[in-house]
Amino acid sequence: MNAEKIPDVIIARLPLYLRALQHMSENGLKSTSSQELGEKLGISAAQIRKDISQFGEFGKQGTGYAIPYLLDKLREILKVDRLWDVIIVGSGDMGHALARYQGFTDRGFNVVMIFDNDKDKVGEKIGDLTVKDSADLVEKVKTAGIKIAMLTIPASVAQDITDKLVEAGVKAILNYAPISLSVPNDVKVQYIDPATHLQRMTYYL
Amino acid sequence: MNAEKIPDVIIARLPLYLRALQHMSENGLKSTSSQELGEKLGISAAQIRKDISQFGEFGKQGTGYAIPYLLDKLREILKVDRLWDVIIVGSGDMGHALARYQGFTDRGFNVVMIFDNDKDKVGEKIGDLTVKDSADLVEKVKTAGIKIAMLTIPASVAQDITDKLVEAGVKAILNYAPISLSVPNDVKVQYIDPATHLQRMTYYL
Repeated sequence: MNAEKIPDVIIARLPLYLRALQHMSENGLKSTSSQELGEKLGISAAQIRKDISQFGEFGKQGTGYAIPYLLDKLREILKVDRLWDVIIVGSGDMGHALARYQGFTDRGFNVVMIFDNDKDKVGEKIGDLTVKDSADLVEKVKTAGIKIAMLTIPASVAQDITDKLVEAGVKAILNYAPISLSVPNDVKVQYIDPATHLQRMTYYL
Repeated sequence: MNAEKIPDVIIARLPLYLRALQHMSENGLKSTSSQELGEKLGISAAQIRKDISQFGEFGKQGTGYAIPYLLDKLREILKVDRLWDVIIVGSGDMGHALARYQGFTDRGFNVVMIFDNDKDKVGEKIGDLTVKDSADLVEKVKTAGIKIAMLTIPASVAQDITDKLVEAGVKAILNYAPISLSVPNDVKVQYIDPATHLQRMTYYL
């Protein structure tokens, strides 16, 4: 197995397999098949078998996949067999919602800091977090060795903040600002923009 | 041009072109090139030319694209040359954030109702909206002829609500619940799940 050679489209599907397997496991299931997984996900069984086999032989013909084992393997492959510290930049409505979201810790992520450049918001408590001043962003992120950030700031300041995050050593950005970001090759960006997602569906209406 | 035959991956990129062109237009630009657009988006100029040419000849060799014209055409293709009524189901933190989000109306969407099944939340004011009872969901959506919904509810109830939305005539669902949904072929679903997006990046860290 050569990790460098696995196509991005396959990597993009693995979190969906992991999520479905976690649901099954929470419901007490111990084994599944590519057919069953495929029906839940709207992905063909053949595709699922092919994707998973890129990483080794995790299932047996006729008996399918042992869920706890496949869960462990997928977590290991996606490197969420650990808990990653994550920061949020922007303490508006979306930043609040993410800071209070309960669905991160059992999927590998721990929100440890939230920043805002609005002095009126700095010091505000959101759950266990206290809003920090964006002026201290680079220093605090660098010192803590944080690699992952979520951006919930206006598009107009998103590139500036991105440049600061890159300077601080961040390598993965989940961007809620409705704008495309420029980053070096070794930094990954994923985009969440509800209007873009909606526009991908209106074409078909 | 045969709309049925345009691949989904091309349709998925059009909202990114539209968004970038809107930014350019807001900044007073009147024309652009596939090179310039490509640099902003991290997509090759050839890919952009090819995508856009699926729908007609909107640019001229040497002079590039007239931004206002291409904006109009992309809005028409994506059917966001009108304002779509959209509902939100779930008035938790994420539902609140979406209900108060300012970025929908200039991109084709108008949030007109928000629902919750929690009687304590029904009647609550969020901006201009008042939280309605989910028990009335099917009737109100059907009567208003609404085709688009955003789901910000727990995974455990997402399929139930989806079935109700489909019954009510909804054809496009933006799902924030961390679970895959089963829908008929004529209903589109887009997924927003921050943990899934983060896991797509940790692999590379």
